[in-house]
Amino acid sequence: MEKFFSQRARNIRRSVIRELLKYTQQPDVISFAGGTPDPETFPREELARIAFQEIQKNYAYSLQYSTTEGNVELRRAFLEILREDGIEAELEEIMITTASQQGLDLVAKTFLDPGDVVYLELPSYLGAIQAFRAFEAELVGITLEEDGMDLERLREQVKKDRARGKNPKLIYVIPDFQNPAGVCWSREKREGLLAIAAEEDLLVVEDAPYRALRFAGEKLPSLKGIDREGRVVFLFTLSKILAPGLRLAALVGTEEIVNKVVAVKQATDLCTPALTQALALRFLKEHDIEDHIGKLRRCYREKRNAMIAALEKYMPEGVRWTRPEGGLFLWVTLPPGLDTEKMLPKALERKVAYVSGSPFFVDGKGQNTMRLSFAIATLEQIEEGIRRLAEVIKEELAALPASVGV
Amino acid sequence: MEKFFSQRARNIRRSVIRELLKYTQQPDVISFAGGTPDPETFPREELARIAFQEIQKNYAYSLQYSTTEGNVELRRAFLEILREDGIEAELEEIMITTASQQGLDLVAKTFLDPGDVVYLELPSYLGAIQAFRAFEAELVGITLEEDGMDLERLREQVKKDRARGKNPKLIYVIPDFQNPAGVCWSREKREGLLAIAAEEDLLVVEDAPYRALRFAGEKLPSLKGIDREGRVVFLFTLSKILAPGLRLAALVGTEEIVNKVVAVKQATDLCTPALTQALALRFLKEHDIEDHIGKLRRCYREKRNAMIAALEKYMPEGVRWTRPEGGLFLWVTLPPGLDTEKMLPKALERKVAYVSGSPFFVDGKGQNTMRLSFAIATLEQIEEGIRRLAEVIKEELAALPASVGV
Repeated sequence: MEKFFSQRARNIRRSVIRELLKYTQQPDVISFAGGTPDPETFPREELARIAFQEIQKNYAYSLQYSTTEGNVELRRAFLEILREDGIEAELEEIMITTASQQGLDLVAKTFLDPGDVVYLELPSYLGAIQAFRAFEAELVGITLEEDGMDLERLREQVKKDRARGKNPKLIYVIPDFQNPAGVCWSREKREGLLAIAAEEDLLVVEDAPYRALRFAGEKLPSLKGIDREGRVVFLFTLSKILAPGLRLAALVGTEEIVNKVVAVKQATDLCTPALTQALALRFLKEHDIEDHIGKLRRCYREKRNAMIAALEKYMPEGVRWTRPEGGLFLWVTLPPGLDTEKMLPKALERKVAYVSGSPFFVDGKGQNTMRLSFAIATLEQIEEGIRRLAEVIKEELAALPASVGV
Repeated sequence: MEKFFSQRARNIRRSVIRELLKYTQQPDVISFAGGTPDPETFPREELARIAFQEIQKNYAYSLQYSTTEGNVELRRAFLEILREDGIEAELEEIMITTASQQGLDLVAKTFLDPGDVVYLELPSYLGAIQAFRAFEAELVGITLEEDGMDLERLREQVKKDRARGKNPKLIYVIPDFQNPAGVCWSREKREGLLAIAAEEDLLVVEDAPYRALRFAGEKLPSLKGIDREGRVVFLFTLSKILAPGLRLAALVGTEEIVNKVVAVKQATDLCTPALTQALALRFLKEHDIEDHIGKLRRCYREKRNAMIAALEKYMPEGVRWTRPEGGLFLWVTLPPGLDTEKMLPKALERKVAYVSGSPFFVDGKGQNTMRLSFAIATLEQIEEGIRRLAEVIKEELAALPASVGV
């Protein structure tokens, strides 16, 4: 069969991480692994009632094909949310996607020829890495510092790539509470990135799934909000602020870009489910999404605080972690010499799960890093899970040869 | 912006047909244009009740991320339906797709390198043409006769393509009540196609959206049902037998193929909505789908008969049409010299809509053909719409220069 596969398909492997996630779904495992939101935050009563009505009364729309660009009213409702967030766009500048992973696939399909260079944070979101690799782009990671990408490195790298005859095309970033590292970019770096994109004539893809989930610090403008050139393609999603099972997101760009991406989507899945669009629209009309997001912020802030407290209580010296002001993740760096991928089976034996960091690094590094999600565990599970994890790490440290010890 | 677009995206245009469909949605237009099923057949009361329960009680699953391969129980339920239809497959040989358009996209992404040759019926389904074109395949149309593809032409063409250094890869067919032509392949041609695929070592993609909608004649085995080599990738969908708004389908192939396509889907949309999967599963568990399909068959048979009766009553001499034993479409051929694309604005003026045939021909022919769907119009609308259409055609014929007249 192998001979039938396309070149791109030969490069695609099932994600080790996602395969491992299956083992973490056993009920007695405390999982910090998935990127899934807490199901107890889903507005189930409201959505159940809405679904009943939308199917019973509005079946000729909600159970039928939708248009490729998506429900007009839902796009207007999204524009309203974006406007509140400082992003001004017209109806022709937004389209619905079957969640943001499709947004990434469509961006790759629309913009990337084999060999085109995509710059992304080191580490960056695994799903984006997969989407861009599937279209045979060359991925170049740029170190993520505490306040965003190392922009000097980015500028040099673009020049170097041009000099060696490459085609720099696109910068992919998650400026707010980045997955996996939880980093939030400073205002200076946001402006700096747009300046480099303008100088070097590059597109910017801004992925913003966690942007609304800020529970500390001052809100900063999105790249799209300060983009004056139409260079930024913005990916908005309901997955983390309403429910990922709806698979609903939107892509925002210039009319010319949206027009082209709609044509590409037509050949990709024809349309996003009318039913889930109808549910989301009614929810946004009848309920205050800001109110709902307020509840999410309180929920995740409490869990994040619990995880940081547990880390402080249990972790041995030499282990470092981020203190994110939003999102769902903490990023943990172990002393050099430890390998979180090799350590995972031992953690699973103790019934605690995490995601090892190296798959998020396009340069293959990050062996001593891990991502911890505080989203789905209860407060008690967070304390107990971090305690177990600290034990595993202490044992690993004890087993290290003295030369590389802390 | 144009310079940022990938080579493939430059080749993709928004479908003229789909754009035109928007005008046909005015309430006073009688539309034979869309490929949409009759919304009055959707089991709205059942699905409304199921949706309420699945969200209220099962929210932790139905509103959360799903696995990429899809709900295990739903895949088992699909396998049961396929088994009844003579297709034996294991759980590892089936995966859920976000409707069959995604199945086509994933097939193209998994198998097609630029320049690979895909053979398809002339005419063939527009969505498939778009999906394959988006991956820069070379599309070669093979004449569709009354009982299936002209297999001698196919065999010669493959040899010719190999001789000119091309890479024949895949044959795409819709053997049951084909879209757009309504043709059903004979048993001999089904076997003949598989023989050629084996001889020439080609993959076969069998798209079967209308297969269950047979309302006359004898049921024939699917290609997948008589495939002994694992050469056939079968696309099953709920769009025409339950509701297209769910966007639910399945891809069936060897374990090796499904494994690879799952990896490709992971990078494409991560997973199909858990909610729509949960609804379909409950519906299939609690209701007899065969019973429901029986109702659809009666509904569409009556409408098809009404359309044929109206065509016989109103159409001028020289107009020919198919008499499909299933599906949603009639295929109409006008006398040479008429152009259904140019005629469409006149039909819309009379408030009747159809789809002109030429976009379904990868060789650019078929100007005098059109596709008529009998699915969504009422019996009265069918009679009245065909009457109006016949008038338009008569006027066009009268305006033809004598030399090309009938």
